[in-house]
Amino acid sequence: MFPKNAWYVACTPDEIDGKPLGRTICNEPIVFFRGPEGQVVALEDFCPHRGAPLSLGRVVDGKLVCGYHGLQMGCDGRTVAMPNQRVRGFPPVRSYPAVERYGFIWVWPGDPAQADPARIHHLHWAGHPEWAYGGGLYHIRCDYRLMIDNLMDLTHETYVHADSIGQKEIDETTPTTHVEGDEVVTSRFMNNISAPPFWRMALRGAGLPEDQPVDRWQICRFSPPSHVMIEVGVALAGRGGYHADNKDKVYSIVVDFLTPETENTMWYFWGMARHFKPDDPELTEAIRKGQGKIFSEDLEMLERQQRNLEHWPDRQLLALNIDAGGVQSRRVIERLIAAERAGATAGAAA
Amino acid sequence: MFPKNAWYVACTPDEIDGKPLGRTICNEPIVFFRGPEGQVVALEDFCPHRGAPLSLGRVVDGKLVCGYHGLQMGCDGRTVAMPNQRVRGFPPVRSYPAVERYGFIWVWPGDPAQADPARIHHLHWAGHPEWAYGGGLYHIRCDYRLMIDNLMDLTHETYVHADSIGQKEIDETTPTTHVEGDEVVTSRFMNNISAPPFWRMALRGAGLPEDQPVDRWQICRFSPPSHVMIEVGVALAGRGGYHADNKDKVYSIVVDFLTPETENTMWYFWGMARHFKPDDPELTEAIRKGQGKIFSEDLEMLERQQRNLEHWPDRQLLALNIDAGGVQSRRVIERLIAAERAGATAGAAA
Amino acid sequence: MFPKNAWYVACTPDEIDGKPLGRTICNEPIVFFRGPEGQVVALEDFCPHRGAPLSLGRVVDGKLVCGYHGLQMGCDGRTVAMPNQRVRGFPPVRSYPAVERYGFIWVWPGDPAQADPARIHHLHWAGHPEWAYGGGLYHIRCDYRLMIDNLMDLTHETYVHADSIGQKEIDETTPTTHVEGDEVVTSRFMNNISAPPFWRMALRGAGLPEDQPVDRWQICRFSPPSHVMIEVGVALAGRGGYHADNKDKVYSIVVDFLTPETENTMWYFWGMARHFKPDDPELTEAIRKGQGKIFSEDLEMLERQQRNLEHWPDRQLLALNIDAGGVQSRRVIERLIAAERAGATAGAAA
Repeated sequence: MFPKNAWYVACTPDEIDGKPLGRTICNEPIVFFRGPEGQVVALEDFCPHRGAPLSLGRVVDGKLVCGYHGLQMGCDGRTVAMPNQRVRGFPPVRSYPAVERYGFIWVWPGDPAQADPARIHHLHWAGHPEWAYGGGLYHIRCDYRLMIDNLMDLTHETYVHADSIGQKEIDETTPTTHVEGDEVVTSRFMNNISAPPFWRMALRGAGLPEDQPVDRWQICRFSPPSHVMIEVGVALAGRGGYHADNKDKVYSIVVDFLTPETENTMWYFWGMARHFKPDDPELTEAIRKGQGKIFSEDLEMLERQQRNLEHWPDRQLLALNIDAGGVQSRRVIERLIAAERAGATAGAAA
Repeated sequence: MFPKNAWYVACTPDEIDGKPLGRTICNEPIVFFRGPEGQVVALEDFCPHRGAPLSLGRVVDGKLVCGYHGLQMGCDGRTVAMPNQRVRGFPPVRSYPAVERYGFIWVWPGDPAQADPARIHHLHWAGHPEWAYGGGLYHIRCDYRLMIDNLMDLTHETYVHADSIGQKEIDETTPTTHVEGDEVVTSRFMNNISAPPFWRMALRGAGLPEDQPVDRWQICRFSPPSHVMIEVGVALAGRGGYHADNKDKVYSIVVDFLTPETENTMWYFWGMARHFKPDDPELTEAIRKGQGKIFSEDLEMLERQQRNLEHWPDRQLLALNIDAGGVQSRRVIERLIAAERAGATAGAAA
Repeated sequence: MFPKNAWYVACTPDEIDGKPLGRTICNEPIVFFRGPEGQVVALEDFCPHRGAPLSLGRVVDGKLVCGYHGLQMGCDGRTVAMPNQRVRGFPPVRSYPAVERYGFIWVWPGDPAQADPARIHHLHWAGHPEWAYGGGLYHIRCDYRLMIDNLMDLTHETYVHADSIGQKEIDETTPTTHVEGDEVVTSRFMNNISAPPFWRMALRGAGLPEDQPVDRWQICRFSPPSHVMIEVGVALAGRGGYHADNKDKVYSIVVDFLTPETENTMWYFWGMARHFKPDDPELTEAIRKGQGKIFSEDLEMLERQQRNLEHWPDRQLLALNIDAGGVQSRRVIERLIAAERAGATAGAAA
């Protein structure tokens, strides 16, 4: 249950440094590599000669050389050469639109004709001098939609992440959810509270007092197909909260790209873009490690939840006010899938 | 192939010390924990909010707090509270009759209306000052009935446990089997033989000579649904054997609770209740370790037998005189399952 | 997809030294052991008593004693004895024709009436004083036919084994393939080239110059059901190549017995019989280690190819000139399977 006509994050540039990468995205086994001009190429991970995975080969002068019998695959999925063979009649393998942007490799696993790079999710902070970014990747054995639910309902922080970012005020504050076209936004504002450890550190780093009351916010934004950006921050209490002047607040964006691998497994690209102390790479690494540890706390819960739902496939789940973000996000996904199918049918008819 | 209207051993008290335990019993994923008065509670391991396993949560004041979003589950399967939510309309999860008795937690995975604690298997030695008990737990990938066969035919001791409790006289002595209602008893009496190592140790501990001939007995008793208690002992030869005076014999009960996890996996609660030197905890631990090692010798055989039977599902096995205990026990089980189904049908019709 | 009326290599003699061996061959779980005269016996790995695998037992005086309850199995699949039991009515288990020859144990998993030891693949070098042999065994999760393809098209050496036996001239030289009855031969002759490291070592060992041009050959011969013998060697250039006088060349036979375990897993018995320095056991071991390392490089490729073909079951592969050996070998296999089925049908009708 995922749209295929969409841009998904497939990997990070370091993963294709000088070598191909095989990764399944939306049930499609794909090989990623860099072509002769350094551009990103995504092809079916299948050598037309004998079906070997091309990702076990190597990249030579921007061509992907199969590691089994030396077939040279070009960037368009057509065989360029093979020792001692005529390759003109070789069947091509499928090529996927792929773009490198904002520090990620994006792939479009659906109909290439509809792949418009302008529709890649815009990351205003990427490469901006006032921002710094660090992140990582987890593989999780669950439907990616369980992670959407997770991120659109942060009350779980109080329980899953009790020791780091959770605090009781999250539970006690009802979030509001609204839909903006294909995007879903769930917001929670907690005013005049005590800052939890992570934000004390951030206030200190920004030269602000860490022991004064703060206004804290969490604004979770789902964008199709499966990106969740969460604006988080604190301002000195009474200075306007989210809208306070930059000198009175510290804030970041929690970055979550949830890429389906199969129907019930996923790739989780997580990270944080922060607006304080951007020129401190040691801080970036410290935050990355801390976030990696915190986010790993979700994995067992999600994988076990997946197994429970498979054991009781017909059981209805609750949809409380805190779940509205996930519920609305799933509706958007369903609408997109329905439109995709209708389009495919119309295309077939025409 | 197991009755569900029956008391099974689910776990030991230490396994729910201050934390919930998730364990599948007879295909039912169940969470066990202690309620506000310390009583044992068994519920479906499924949070009605989003399907998370409740066993990943924690127990607070006798309520089970879901580790995902803080739903508080009560002892009856009804949600007690959830931060910032009205829970009255939340669907309950199933509650299972559960009882703590004799040092074990017992659960009834079937129709709760029929669960009568008086029907829990009576262990006369439990808590008795003349007896001491030690045991452990193994998970085995086989149908629990293969373990019933194993325990109701101790000729395997000569082969599987050749170095510890086996001796050739076991093989050479034909056992007798009789059925007492729903119980099956297979007995073997070996008179005027040499005591094997374990019994020499026991004789020595009881101040009896260890190098004289003994009369040895093994009385295996199957009780539904899947308990096998084995009376074992030796008496100085010619003093009456099993019926000898206490001063002339040493004896124990090998305790085996075989709890189905699924159709082809099981939980094996094994142990020994002994009637000699009850006040020697070091002896208890030494016996426990020795028994654990001996009983682990069965695991590979049973798991490989299971795989063989799955490979040849239609092949008929032999039913020799030594197999009568297992054969009769399986008949009891089949009769109980048939009665259970008939009852369910009658109940549905009424 | 494998013939069952054929002699397959099942194991090596050391694997049944003083103990039984359980191994599945062509979907048949078989136990191998030595009978009272030391002869090889192959039976269903199933005790007729309770279905335990006989391979967990032990061999006593040429009888296989079941490790569960002591049933004594004879060499013909009939129970010989069991403690305290009459065994005359025990159902026999299936016995498979098995022969020890040329340093291997051969088994015929099909119709025993058709098993003629004269049809065992002849190994002229086995036990010959001018030859030495060393080899090993790998388990691979792929259809054995993928390994036939692999071995009948050695262009993969240039890519998979680039650092050891590969060289660009392999790629550049078109092989020729011809069918000889049920055998398929693919040959490649490379004249006046530089010897790669392995052959330099061999030339040196034979007292020949290693830095002169050589003529190199690779003659791959498929014999049903799934043996591939590869004659490899080099001669000083211009002395007749393959047909050069023994004093001017060094050569070996790469030995590959590909035994199906199931439809998509296999046993790979690999080795090398060499015609130079046969009396040097250290060299035998050095070559064995080197070959083991080189041949292990194929495993990931084959297992990943298998998974790719399972993902795209309907995709047609290419059949280039270099693939002719594999293509023809598969045709032989298909013909044999068809004949086997026709024979079975005719037999059933008669």
